[in-house]
Amino acid sequence: MTANIKLIIQYDGTNFNGWQVQKKHPHTRTVQAVLEKALKCIVKEPVTLIGAGRTDSGVHARGQVANFLTQNPIPVEKWPAALNSILPPDVAVVGAEEVPAEFHATYWAKKKTYHYYILNARYPDVFLRNYALHVPQRLNFGDMREAARFILGTHDFKSFCAAGSSVKNHRRTIYEADFSIEGELIVFKITADGFLYKMIRSIVGTLLEIGKGKYPPGWMQEVLEARDRKKSGPTAPPHGLYLDRVFYD
Amino acid sequence: MTANIKLIIQYDGTNFNGWQVQKKHPHTRTVQAVLEKALKCIVKEPVTLIGAGRTDSGVHARGQVANFLTQNPIPVEKWPAALNSILPPDVAVVGAEEVPAEFHATYWAKKKTYHYYILNARYPDVFLRNYALHVPQRLNFGDMREAARFILGTHDFKSFCAAGSSVKNHRRTIYEADFSIEGELIVFKITADGFLYKMIRSIVGTLLEIGKGKYPPGWMQEVLEARDRKKSGPTAPPHGLYLDRVFYD
Repeated sequence: MTANIKLIIQYDGTNFNGWQVQKKHPHTRTVQAVLEKALKCIVKEPVTLIGAGRTDSGVHARGQVANFLTQNPIPVEKWPAALNSILPPDVAVVGAEEVPAEFHATYWAKKKTYHYYILNARYPDVFLRNYALHVPQRLNFGDMREAARFILGTHDFKSFCAAGSSVKNHRRTIYEADFSIEGELIVFKITADGFLYKMIRSIVGTLLEIGKGKYPPGWMQEVLEARDRKKSGPTAPPHGLYLDRVFYD
Repeated sequence: MTANIKLIIQYDGTNFNGWQVQKKHPHTRTVQAVLEKALKCIVKEPVTLIGAGRTDSGVHARGQVANFLTQNPIPVEKWPAALNSILPPDVAVVGAEEVPAEFHATYWAKKKTYHYYILNARYPDVFLRNYALHVPQRLNFGDMREAARFILGTHDFKSFCAAGSSVKNHRRTIYEADFSIEGELIVFKITADGFLYKMIRSIVGTLLEIGKGKYPPGWMQEVLEARDRKKSGPTAPPHGLYLDRVFYD
């Protein structure tokens, strides 16, 4: 009997070269490679893990989802502890369930939520140096929130798609794009049916230009309508970004 | 004119061999050594930094205090930015003020507050792996809180003083010893006029035995009255411990 197992995975992206196994550089440390090695250790045969989202180098995850097929009879609830006992301390499996044979973590994903953490404080916080972008200038969150509203709904996001992507269709639907403020820590929460290459970091970089007062909130709409990568702000660094949750039907 | 400068210092203890410069091992990475090197870089002469508390390897600080004498005319409010521009990312100066010539960070300290973080959750949290002790068993915080009350006030804490200390007087006064609960994160807050070698980690280790149900809350008093290190619980690991604040008159 082959079982299809869905895992919920958390990782600190600091010391990973992103999620995906790099076939040209098989010794690069990626989350997928580390997990596949741990799975092989348990089931004694090569396993391919299908991830919901390919996070970049330095990007974190609280709720990455991945699935794999196995004939191993381990009860599904035992998978997290079995894997965590082998995995290095910067990646952990925090949930497992058996899913239908057709389930595919990438194709079945309906929505994803990412969080981007910004520490808006005079001094850096050593404990957040790998976990939030430190911005010492006072940011205008009212303007940033107003600007974020322009990307809600379905648009062509070509202006926010980094070079190096082979994607042809740049239309995506944004369901949520808002800020929550927890003291000096600002969290940008964005939910969409999918994201283009470095799209969130490009959106955050553009919002930061507005927050710093370099452009008015309406500039966000101008950038969006230009469909030109050269119009947007700089790409924000990866260490503030977290894949928070992947939604399935 | 010689000025006496008091600094407030934050550090992630993970990659430090504690606070204090080790004269026998001058190449060991300590917080004091890293800060003295940064100071020397600015004032162009050797500087001795006097710290309030000597934290051990792996122990963190949010509010360590240290002072140094200098003839450098930099305005006091410029010291944090000047030092942070040189310091590595795991240590930061978050405050500076000029103090009387006689001020001595160690001897003038009246009270210190330490926090110990415990993640009481089924699964580890990769983001807290260096910042909180993960305890998967369900802890009884009612019992731990009750046990913590026995150490309030002035007592001989010899039972909680690790070997390797040359201190003769084991009497200390505890002003606060309580738990706060923030979801799955438990913070033990302890304030005293001073602490013996590994005293807090030994107290936390003893409280954890009680929280796990191995001993009743009253065992805390038995251990305290025994004045014998062999009676207490194991020393909790350093990575959950933070020097939170040092109090002066």
